[in-house]
Amino acid sequence: MEDAQMEEHVQHIRPPRCVGVVGLGLIGGSFAKAYADAGMKVLAHDIDKGTLAAACGEGTVAAPLTRDNVGECDAVIVALYPQDTVDWVVEHADLFGSEALVIDCGGVKRPICEPLFEAAERAGFAFMGGHPMAGTHHSGFRYARSDLFAGQPMVLVPPAIFSPELIDRAKAVLDPAGFGSYAVTTPETHDRLIAYTSQLAHVVSSAFAKSPTALKHKGFSAGSYKDLTRVAELNPDMWTELFLDNADNLDTELERVIVELQRYRDAIGSGDREGLRRLLAEGSAAKLKADGRYADVQGMM
Amino acid sequence: MEDAQMEEHVQHIRPPRCVGVVGLGLIGGSFAKAYADAGMKVLAHDIDKGTLAAACGEGTVAAPLTRDNVGECDAVIVALYPQDTVDWVVEHADLFGSEALVIDCGGVKRPICEPLFEAAERAGFAFMGGHPMAGTHHSGFRYARSDLFAGQPMVLVPPAIFSPELIDRAKAVLDPAGFGSYAVTTPETHDRLIAYTSQLAHVVSSAFAKSPTALKHKGFSAGSYKDLTRVAELNPDMWTELFLDNADNLDTELERVIVELQRYRDAIGSGDREGLRRLLAEGSAAKLKADGRYADVQGMM
Repeated sequence: MEDAQMEEHVQHIRPPRCVGVVGLGLIGGSFAKAYADAGMKVLAHDIDKGTLAAACGEGTVAAPLTRDNVGECDAVIVALYPQDTVDWVVEHADLFGSEALVIDCGGVKRPICEPLFEAAERAGFAFMGGHPMAGTHHSGFRYARSDLFAGQPMVLVPPAIFSPELIDRAKAVLDPAGFGSYAVTTPETHDRLIAYTSQLAHVVSSAFAKSPTALKHKGFSAGSYKDLTRVAELNPDMWTELFLDNADNLDTELERVIVELQRYRDAIGSGDREGLRRLLAEGSAAKLKADGRYADVQGMM
Repeated sequence: MEDAQMEEHVQHIRPPRCVGVVGLGLIGGSFAKAYADAGMKVLAHDIDKGTLAAACGEGTVAAPLTRDNVGECDAVIVALYPQDTVDWVVEHADLFGSEALVIDCGGVKRPICEPLFEAAERAGFAFMGGHPMAGTHHSGFRYARSDLFAGQPMVLVPPAIFSPELIDRAKAVLDPAGFGSYAVTTPETHDRLIAYTSQLAHVVSSAFAKSPTALKHKGFSAGSYKDLTRVAELNPDMWTELFLDNADNLDTELERVIVELQRYRDAIGSGDREGLRRLLAEGSAAKLKADGRYADVQGMM
């Protein structure tokens, strides 16, 4: 009995032979290329026929993923917008093999994981929420590359009760992407952290880029302008959905940064040299602490 | 007479043989290294005796810059905080050679250029306001490098009335630093643009870094978090002075970005999908226009 369990375990954690990829955008496309590079068979779906044809033509994708062959996949990576992710997985719930592991890539986890943990339990396949911490401000298959995730962090969001083996299976499935580290958490914690690290960053960059002064920046700007405006170039449809799906957490972060900016404004407007200096020193210290450089904070204040 | 004028012109625009550098921080230190690499004699001053000794010891600086030898310099680069810049140049006004060109590197130009154009006219040397668009979030001589300015833009701020030859002289003096382009403007325009491209970027990054969520970013962040927080690590003394010296322009930009952020917050809070999408599309378009990519804006909205 123990031997049989062990054997089953070993079987589960071997790498997948056939992977389904749903959505050949930047993220899905990069997964497809990484799997193809690793010699795995990739079946893929994309609503854009031209993208799918191109991915098949270049050899990344072996064949279109259909309701007929989705059952062959050991693993399915879903890289769609959140609502589309839920819809696609629910529609295919009864077609996945009983050994299949389905992992999504959505930028919010509560609206995806809650319905899909349920769907997976009902239909008898395994579902793991995922969020690769990688990307560019460009989107689409033409920017996809097999090393997009190399060395980057990956967030895993398992069901409320899970076996450690599920994490091993997810890591085995994701291995060809070459992630540098994994963090396991709940949908709630993921959404709270991502509201700041990714979503607020995009809102602030978008707002920053809108000053009419930006039109004259050439010759008067360097790294700081470039950094602050980089992600203002974004996909408005996708980010609108992500922001509204995480409105509570994002509102908390937005309120905080607005209140904070007003503090600097007040100090600058009233010529409060000591207060302004303290605000800036605190910002510097916050950055050093966030990066784990506590030693550098000494003497800073 | 015409020949003599021509000869004088040619003499003026040849590169300097001896350059004074005042302040061996990141900026002054990088100029000193660039001049030393170009085979020029560098005399330098720094209030920190250890830094000056190190710069002399490594051969970057030939000798300390003093009241006795400052008259030997064909050019003097002043890389101090704004008020210190004004004080140092005024104190040495009568000691510069009549052929000397003094260029400062301050991040604001009105409080520096106004008094120093006057001082230069009174004492009979040439002064040009300068602002190299380069830097790192690190400061100090140990981060200085001779190629810090290579390919970067340089802003020149000449007096209200000036001969074109003054620009040629400044470019000849700055040539060893390898700037990629030059922009010539007034102190007022410089300060208005820099309030946005550099100062607002630093305030926003400082405010952004202060969310308590930042402490848990590891494993949940990628490029956008890194970009938004990079320049939060700053020199609080220097930036306090720069911000207060440009309070009027910075206040305008700060007000604008706060109002703009509140718009996103309102749209997110009220679930206004169409309004939020439009705000994001406008931010994307603003970024593309600012970068001169007008063609990419088509169809975006």
